[in-house]
Amino acid sequence: MTKLALVRHGQSAWNLENRFTGWWDADLTEKGEAEARHSGQMLKDVDADFRMAFTSLQTRAIRTLWMALTEMNRVWLPVEKSWRLNERHYGGLTGLDKAETAVKHGAEQVHIWRRSYDIPPPPIEAGNPFDPAQDPRYRGIDVPATESLKNTLERVLPYWTSDITPVLAAGTDTVIAAHGNSLRALVKHLFNVPDESITGIEIPTGNPLLIDLDANLKPTKVRYLDSARSASLPDLP
Amino acid sequence: MTKLALVRHGQSAWNLENRFTGWWDADLTEKGEAEARHSGQMLKDVDADFRMAFTSLQTRAIRTLWMALTEMNRVWLPVEKSWRLNERHYGGLTGLDKAETAVKHGAEQVHIWRRSYDIPPPPIEAGNPFDPAQDPRYRGIDVPATESLKNTLERVLPYWTSDITPVLAAGTDTVIAAHGNSLRALVKHLFNVPDESITGIEIPTGNPLLIDLDANLKPTKVRYLDSARSASLPDLP
Repeated sequence: MTKLALVRHGQSAWNLENRFTGWWDADLTEKGEAEARHSGQMLKDVDADFRMAFTSLQTRAIRTLWMALTEMNRVWLPVEKSWRLNERHYGGLTGLDKAETAVKHGAEQVHIWRRSYDIPPPPIEAGNPFDPAQDPRYRGIDVPATESLKNTLERVLPYWTSDITPVLAAGTDTVIAAHGNSLRALVKHLFNVPDESITGIEIPTGNPLLIDLDANLKPTKVRYLDSARSASLPDLP
Repeated sequence: MTKLALVRHGQSAWNLENRFTGWWDADLTEKGEAEARHSGQMLKDVDADFRMAFTSLQTRAIRTLWMALTEMNRVWLPVEKSWRLNERHYGGLTGLDKAETAVKHGAEQVHIWRRSYDIPPPPIEAGNPFDPAQDPRYRGIDVPATESLKNTLERVLPYWTSDITPVLAAGTDTVIAAHGNSLRALVKHLFNVPDESITGIEIPTGNPLLIDLDANLKPTKVRYLDSARSASLPDLP
């Protein structure tokens, strides 16, 4: 039985400002750093031997992982980083204040973009100062211009299959530190969550989701580490 | 032309206490953290496109790298960690105060252990509380019981050849964050420094050594980034 811990990064500067962040590289706030340390303290007490970690190319997830590993006395773990674990790309909404966006596009439209499975926001336009396409970390990567959750899942899954499942299949307990929607995509895949209910699953920040996997990588047990906080759990498949 | 930056970790708790550290996992002091940030600030200004980093399995080197990458806005670089970049293993001297060791073994003998090329200290004994052999990070690794600088070089070189030179040969500017003696071993190899003079080369903390390499990975230029501080430079081969 292999253990997989999904850690969602904590509060970032743009969460605080209530702006659509997506691929913009907002860093953690002090509260976000505290959430990362709290996650690490709980992971330290898990009866597991974490030997591998994965994260995105975004600072807030990478630093969450680093701070968690520090608390776990596991800074020496191998860490693999990939853009495929990045947050969902919010297209033309990137950088916009959520309240202003609702005024501009209508609250219902914004709700659809945020909560539908397969409807992406308008693409980000060339020259938009929040366009990550020119960021040196994405050199050689075909950076999307916008993504639905479905699009996010479609680029997370190949990496899950190529890089993460071989590690888990070898019995290696693993930590993934990533983002609300890239983790949601993984949960959808692992638990066969239907399209229409996946946006109801919200992994909280600062509260890792721990999953036991059998030899076929089928989840046999799932729980949040901070049992004092309530959060939506996927049903076992 | 490829750039290679060698970063020696800054002050650790045991440097401060003047104890032989070796494979013991002493963490950075506040001064050591400041040295790491200073290294990163200087590396940020180098005309290079650092795309890969290597470090040891020891906290003080890993955290030095993390802090430097943070200053460089490059936390997203791939990082490979290996025990082969660890500090020289100080055997039975690990954990001992340097002054006390001189009283016990004689200052001349301690000088020989510290400054000779191929004379290792006595091996660490089973049950020594400073023995790293049971540390989970070294599972599956044939942990040495003591090392001379020559022994250190002999375990650094296979990794240099297998993992680091292919990256450099592909033209990728690279950072290595490691330890006084593992970096000294690399410098000995790169600059063909004779056995009898290598212990005279001391890469300072908080002052990265920047090396330009030609297509054959032969050094063509070498300098410290903090030119205000004097330090011994290897001659170009």
